[in-house]
Amino acid sequence: MQKKEENMNEWFNELIRETELVDDRYNVKGFVIYREWCAMSLKKMYNIFESVLNKKNHMPLFMPVVIPEQNFYKEAEHVKGFTPEVFWVTEHGDKEKLEEKLALRPTSETAFYQMYSLWIRSYNDLPYKRYQSGSVYRYETKATRPFLRGREFLWIETHCAFRDEKAALEQIQEDMETTKEVITNVFGIPVLFLQRPQWDKFAGAVNTYAADTITQNGKFLQTATTHYLGTSFAKAFDVKYKDENGKDNLAHLTCYGPGISREFGTIVAIHGDNKGLRFPFEIAPKQIVIVPVLIKGKEKEVLKKVKDIYKKLSKTYEVILDDNTQKTPGEKFYFWEMKGVPIRIEIGPRDIENKKVGIFRRDLNSKEFILEKDLTKTISKIAKEFTSNLKNQAEKAFTENIVEVKDMKALEKALESNKVVRAPFCSIDKDGEKYADMIKEKTGAEIKGIILTKETAPKELCIASGKPAKHYVYIGRGY
Amino acid sequence: MQKKEENMNEWFNELIRETELVDDRYNVKGFVIYREWCAMSLKKMYNIFESVLNKKNHMPLFMPVVIPEQNFYKEAEHVKGFTPEVFWVTEHGDKEKLEEKLALRPTSETAFYQMYSLWIRSYNDLPYKRYQSGSVYRYETKATRPFLRGREFLWIETHCAFRDEKAALEQIQEDMETTKEVITNVFGIPVLFLQRPQWDKFAGAVNTYAADTITQNGKFLQTATTHYLGTSFAKAFDVKYKDENGKDNLAHLTCYGPGISREFGTIVAIHGDNKGLRFPFEIAPKQIVIVPVLIKGKEKEVLKKVKDIYKKLSKTYEVILDDNTQKTPGEKFYFWEMKGVPIRIEIGPRDIENKKVGIFRRDLNSKEFILEKDLTKTISKIAKEFTSNLKNQAEKAFTENIVEVKDMKALEKALESNKVVRAPFCSIDKDGEKYADMIKEKTGAEIKGIILTKETAPKELCIASGKPAKHYVYIGRGY
Repeated sequence: MQKKEENMNEWFNELIRETELVDDRYNVKGFVIYREWCAMSLKKMYNIFESVLNKKNHMPLFMPVVIPEQNFYKEAEHVKGFTPEVFWVTEHGDKEKLEEKLALRPTSETAFYQMYSLWIRSYNDLPYKRYQSGSVYRYETKATRPFLRGREFLWIETHCAFRDEKAALEQIQEDMETTKEVITNVFGIPVLFLQRPQWDKFAGAVNTYAADTITQNGKFLQTATTHYLGTSFAKAFDVKYKDENGKDNLAHLTCYGPGISREFGTIVAIHGDNKGLRFPFEIAPKQIVIVPVLIKGKEKEVLKKVKDIYKKLSKTYEVILDDNTQKTPGEKFYFWEMKGVPIRIEIGPRDIENKKVGIFRRDLNSKEFILEKDLTKTISKIAKEFTSNLKNQAEKAFTENIVEVKDMKALEKALESNKVVRAPFCSIDKDGEKYADMIKEKTGAEIKGIILTKETAPKELCIASGKPAKHYVYIGRGY
Repeated sequence: MQKKEENMNEWFNELIRETELVDDRYNVKGFVIYREWCAMSLKKMYNIFESVLNKKNHMPLFMPVVIPEQNFYKEAEHVKGFTPEVFWVTEHGDKEKLEEKLALRPTSETAFYQMYSLWIRSYNDLPYKRYQSGSVYRYETKATRPFLRGREFLWIETHCAFRDEKAALEQIQEDMETTKEVITNVFGIPVLFLQRPQWDKFAGAVNTYAADTITQNGKFLQTATTHYLGTSFAKAFDVKYKDENGKDNLAHLTCYGPGISREFGTIVAIHGDNKGLRFPFEIAPKQIVIVPVLIKGKEKEVLKKVKDIYKKLSKTYEVILDDNTQKTPGEKFYFWEMKGVPIRIEIGPRDIENKKVGIFRRDLNSKEFILEKDLTKTISKIAKEFTSNLKNQAEKAFTENIVEVKDMKALEKALESNKVVRAPFCSIDKDGEKYADMIKEKTGAEIKGIILTKETAPKELCIASGKPAKHYVYIGRGY
């Protein structure tokens, strides 16, 4: 197998195929099948995200997958940004034309907000927080790649309405906390929160805020974005509320989109190693595998023991008992390590004599023998610390992969050695775009944005324009 | 409000609008929005169904929403049955044609089985049991109606492959048990399992088996179907396995489709009453509502008490505390009864003095006062018996609505008084179709099929053809 540190892209491609997460042989370009092992985990990811959103007073909706063409033309920036990527449903049955073309939703602002115009009446209805879990469709012209760029991807989109900008920006904060709570703490993925440059924001937004991770080979990978939409969509779709004085006001809208299939790919890319996948404990399709070590004449005793343990642990965890007799224990160890099961329990006749069990943990790739009576306690301890071990390992690489640079030469050098950089830059407003283009042309790297914590402006000059720098920006190549 | 017993259709339409389950003002015909209260319940329905399927060794997949046109043409019966109903994606971006037309899946046999041809290699891979949860799309030409007939509906589809017909038919049995386990026992809906006549089976199937309920106004409502597909799809998509001797064999396929949005509508129709919705306990969006009865000067004491109870019960149940001060307790009672919350707890200052709480239960629409110390025990008792009370009430109407008839005149009379019938009929094979057409023309009723338990053939003559009757069939109007 390809080594991760030698060629991460090839390693990723081989790994997702070898572990049967995905099948890219479906006969429509850019559409893949998320297979069993992956699908079980995706469903857990959805459940965790939804329960956090529910706790924060969002409510679910199921919106139609199609959006009439006319809806797109209501918000000028949005139509410009999205129309080139839309799949259109135009016919039904035997070549009969539909009365109006229908878009397969590439995102659902233009479906939600016409309904918000009917549902939101007064300030009492605000904040109005809703979400939908599902797939969206974009005709990607770049090379597609399972999980990271496809024409159909799984995500959640929230759409929220507020009285004013202040309340809307508080929602942006809450969305970032949600990202941290789920993507960092449950999925173990460290992220940087960045405000995107004006030329790289969501079509129709005032501002876009992203949560980017950095892969071990020094590339940015976007895991979620949240957008402050101001009142432009509210104006286009007539989303108004009556205030305490009976006066009509436009609502301020935000939307948040954590990508579920993309985050799954991120988890594979960030936590995987040269043995295979490593799943964060809570979203592992199976959390524990039990492998009996069968030796002739003692099979019965060992099988009884593993079945007892299987039964006991199954009350709390998702457990597999791999008692297949066609494979050796060594083959099973190799297989389940590759599949990323967090904990393996091994038991042979000698272990039973010694009242011990072997425990292999995939976060540290280490094995120890413990007394069988300590099993439940040990498992519960490993379960608790598993994901934070993955996270700590990821954070180390993440931090090491950001370097400070002060000029173009240092930037190029950093990119060559697979790093992303933090550098002084003149402006992330419209007037900075040409310097961003210059950097892109010279190095292939993009300006990903500025960090959201307040920083004092740099004293240095912009690395691209030579003008006074307004911010430190993050620059790098991306997936 | 319209009374259920006077005009069930109108009652249903009013109820789903009044309770904001659905919004049918979305600007694409036949596509509706499932709103918050409904969406919360739909998610629970999915979770329950999926956990039962998982326990029976099905595994989840996420398949693409689009299916290339060529796939449809592989199975002749299937293309004939489904093409008229397909929505076609033909363009992308600015009027650019796709290389091949893509169907929005109306059902996914033609997507799954080409992959099964790659995934299934030998008898060791069988049985092969997979499912997908999601939406499907059909260009319905009949009048659409929220939940019961739409152009987009939510369902689960399982697709299973077996060595032979025997194993496949055992799966059909398992599917019917699953229907009973979930639809009858958890959703409280009584069903009849019927084998559909040959002229009314799934396009491409050998046989179709349905689980039909009967509404209080005497109409059939299909809740789930399972199909034995034989080997025709396996042949069309090359789904083969090598047996123990290395010989290639065609797999026998089955598929099962419980409709989630349709079942939701069925639950509304069957359990709802003139006060509003009644949710089965496990799938209620909220299971308990607490209403404080606030009397001037004693607000603080009452609010403290209801908050304590809210906190305690929230550990086990999904609870709302309705402490809105703009509405009277009476308005709240009316509202939450309409919304179908199973249990209401009322507490006023006098109740606190008497150490009592009021409990209203929506299954029996009855109220009692109990000692506060018995609250947890009482709630847990009501929770346990709630759904079976709904089921028993439904079963009574269900059984009363089936009548035996022996001739056409009795059939017509039964239909006029809103019943469905059981009657001797010549044949549900192709040769019976013309007599079914005759009945349909005369009465508007359809032959829904024969019951699956073995019965001795009737001694009477067929009510339509006058020939010897082969079976008792169920006949009625349907949704």
